[in-house]
Amino acid sequence: MSTLVLLRHGQSQWNLENRFTGWWDVPLSDVGEDEARSAGRLLAAEGLNIDIVYTSVLTRAIQTADIALGELGRLWVPVKRHWRLNERHYGGLTGLDKKDTFDKYGEEQYMTWRRSFDTPPPPMPADSPYSVLDDPRYRNLAPGVVPATECLADVIDRMLPYWYDVMAPDLLAGATLLVAAHGNSMRALIKHLDGVSDEAITELELPTGVPIVYELDHQLRPTIPGGQALGDPEVIAAAAEAVRNQGR
Amino acid sequence: MSTLVLLRHGQSQWNLENRFTGWWDVPLSDVGEDEARSAGRLLAAEGLNIDIVYTSVLTRAIQTADIALGELGRLWVPVKRHWRLNERHYGGLTGLDKKDTFDKYGEEQYMTWRRSFDTPPPPMPADSPYSVLDDPRYRNLAPGVVPATECLADVIDRMLPYWYDVMAPDLLAGATLLVAAHGNSMRALIKHLDGVSDEAITELELPTGVPIVYELDHQLRPTIPGGQALGDPEVIAAAAEAVRNQGR
Repeated sequence: MSTLVLLRHGQSQWNLENRFTGWWDVPLSDVGEDEARSAGRLLAAEGLNIDIVYTSVLTRAIQTADIALGELGRLWVPVKRHWRLNERHYGGLTGLDKKDTFDKYGEEQYMTWRRSFDTPPPPMPADSPYSVLDDPRYRNLAPGVVPATECLADVIDRMLPYWYDVMAPDLLAGATLLVAAHGNSMRALIKHLDGVSDEAITELELPTGVPIVYELDHQLRPTIPGGQALGDPEVIAAAAEAVRNQGR
Repeated sequence: MSTLVLLRHGQSQWNLENRFTGWWDVPLSDVGEDEARSAGRLLAAEGLNIDIVYTSVLTRAIQTADIALGELGRLWVPVKRHWRLNERHYGGLTGLDKKDTFDKYGEEQYMTWRRSFDTPPPPMPADSPYSVLDDPRYRNLAPGVVPATECLADVIDRMLPYWYDVMAPDLLAGATLLVAAHGNSMRALIKHLDGVSDEAITELELPTGVPIVYELDHQLRPTIPGGQALGDPEVIAAAAEAVRNQGR
């Protein structure tokens, strides 16, 4: 048995501004920092002793991990960061206001872009101010690795190699893992763990700042499908609902 | 040519309380957090693009690295933590008030414990409230690795394998390294880099919160002995003097 804790980062500056973010790097808002602290306290109350922390290479996930581990008194654990845990790349939507996009394109197109399993948004133009092609954190990646846009199916394809090559071996070695990442990289992981269908996974709303604890057997199958969210069920439901209604 | 940046953490809660700390894990004080922010701004002003960050497994060094990298916008760099970068283990002095110790044992004994190259303080009793033998961060180390006390010579002995095996290869591969650590693990590294004598190294006072930049040639020899401290020389001198007078 091993333990995997998933933690979706809380409110970022662009969640606050209601903009599509994706691979653009924005910090947590004050509310997001509070969510991370609250997550750390929930982990501490549960006595969950994290052995290794995983994050994307995006500041909002890294801050979430650092704040939560600070609350736990476990800032010292080994840290593994990887772009394969990044949020979905929102392509040409990156930087746009969600409500403006909803109003301009209508609910059907908007929801397709937000929630289709296999239809990505239009690609990001090469001259977009939100291009990350020159970002030093991606500079040493092979040509073609940085996407111009992604649907959830794309996120699954690029996340799973990291799961198989790095996270799964750590779990099989008995480590308790904390993964601080994003709505869609978490969906990708949960789809894999729980065998969720393509349709159902797009409907799954993960609350932010709420640790979800998976106990996994020796074949890394969840002993309880969907894992267990820590904290007050009403708070968790409200947090998931708030995410669902973004842009409305 | 490669670049190595050394950053000694600033004021911790026990620096503030004037207590011997060593391997005991205390967080930065508010002043120490400010020092780390200031160090990050100095790195940013210098255009120093850190590729990899190294820390001890002690919270005050980790916080220093996180705060400085946050200022630099480079929280995303790979992180390597190791106990071999820890502060000197102060043995039986751990937890004691520095001024009380000075008054009780006199200047000569006090300065021997603080600054002798090869005389360690008395070992920590097994039942000390400041023992780290049960600390989970050291749980998987081989028996006998966690010291009961250390002099500077001991710190050098346990630090150098990490330099040779991990840091030096990263530097030779061209990475710019930030090392956030402690007065004595920094002294150990500087003694090695600059070939400082046993006597002179014990007199070296490193300012806290001041990045010291070493440019190293292909044999990892400093191009400028002692490196270059970033920032206002008067501020740096005052910071070093403040450390020198601790306990007086």
